Amino acid sequence: MLEIRIKTSQRVEARNITHEVSKTMQGRAGRLLHVYTPHTTCGLTINEEADPHVMQDIMEALDRMVPRNYPYKHMEGNSDAHIKSTITGCAVTVPFSRGAPALGTWQGIFLMEFDGPRERKVFVTIIE
Amino acid sequence: MLEIRIKTSQRVEARNITHEVSKTMQGRAGRLLHVYTPHTTCGLTINEEADPHVMQDIMEALDRMVPRNYPYKHMEGNSDAHIKSTITGCAVTVPFSRGAPALGTWQGIFLMEFDGPRERKVFVTIIE
Amino acid sequence: MLEIRIKTSQRVEARNITHEVSKTMQGRAGRLLHVYTPHTTCGLTINEEADPHVMQDIMEALDRMVPRNYPYKHMEGNSDAHIKSTITGCAVTVPFSRGAPALGTWQGIFLMEFDGPRERKVFVTIIE
Repeated sequence: MLEIRIKTSQRVEARNITHEVSKTMQGRAGRLLHVYTPHTTCGLTINEEADPHVMQDIMEALDRMVPRNYPYKHMEGNSDAHIKSTITGCAVTVPFSRGAPALGTWQGIFLMEFDGPRERKVFVTIIE
Repeated sequence: MLEIRIKTSQRVEARNITHEVSKTMQGRAGRLLHVYTPHTTCGLTINEEADPHVMQDIMEALDRMVPRNYPYKHMEGNSDAHIKSTITGCAVTVPFSRGAPALGTWQGIFLMEFDGPRERKVFVTIIE
Repeated sequence: MLEIRIKTSQRVEARNITHEVSKTMQGRAGRLLHVYTPHTTCGLTINEEADPHVMQDIMEALDRMVPRNYPYKHMEGNSDAHIKSTITGCAVTVPFSRGAPALGTWQGIFLMEFDGPRERKVFVTIIE
């Protein structure tokens, strides 16, 4: 398991980490790439990286589904971030093909920051 | 990693691919079955396959949560499909038990087409 | 693959199963922990276990997004549970670090009961 650190710069931010994840894997191969974040107020997803508007639409749709302000019971003001983290999940997996993760043409791996800015840990594991 | 192709026939469609996935695994065993789709406007999920109304209810609930028509920033008219793909995810995993995927009695594996009709790729990987 | 049984006590309940999952792994190590539930009306998620209000906020947010009462097509009165199961997913994965699952400081593994009370099966698999 390799660890990378991602510094986010806004409260809500879709950060493309495909390059950082790929760098940890140089020269290594396997059957499955596993990416995990050990936090409870951010998430990971795979979606389109070509047009940044896509991730912006996703973030804004999550905001409409899970408003930041609501009489939540958890008193730290970030319940919306926890809820969004469960909707997206905190792990993604990608199979390998010919020695590299078989991401689709348009796919990128994104850290979804829902309660930043913070420094986030991301764990990268290769299953053989 | 084995690849299968699924042709969907409607814009929004829950397509049971359990049989197609199972066929690729004939005679092969392992610890974990990994199913992945390299697209950003469809998803994968595991849910009830006995009553097709269940997947219909799921698709319609996603439509209510993420309307097709909205002033999205992405200009291709399929932002709702990208958003739904992040909600469901593009991979599912199932453990093996006695040489076969341990799907529950009612569980099937579904490709959730959110922007069809298209031909979709699905990658099947067995982890030992 | 090891199996554990969880008895839920309410219709909707976030049940922390971190301890039960950990017990099945005593003395065993690997690269990836896989936890799976073979049902279609509950889910699994990883989120904060310190303040129980977090999971309560998550459960109530899912209820607002997916109301129990609606003219669903599936006639068993539990369509909301199936829909929530697809939103959360029925599997979680955690990498290992130094012989133990690398759960974050605040993370716990939760069985999300959406149609209880029932006895639920959970399958624990370690990938090496």
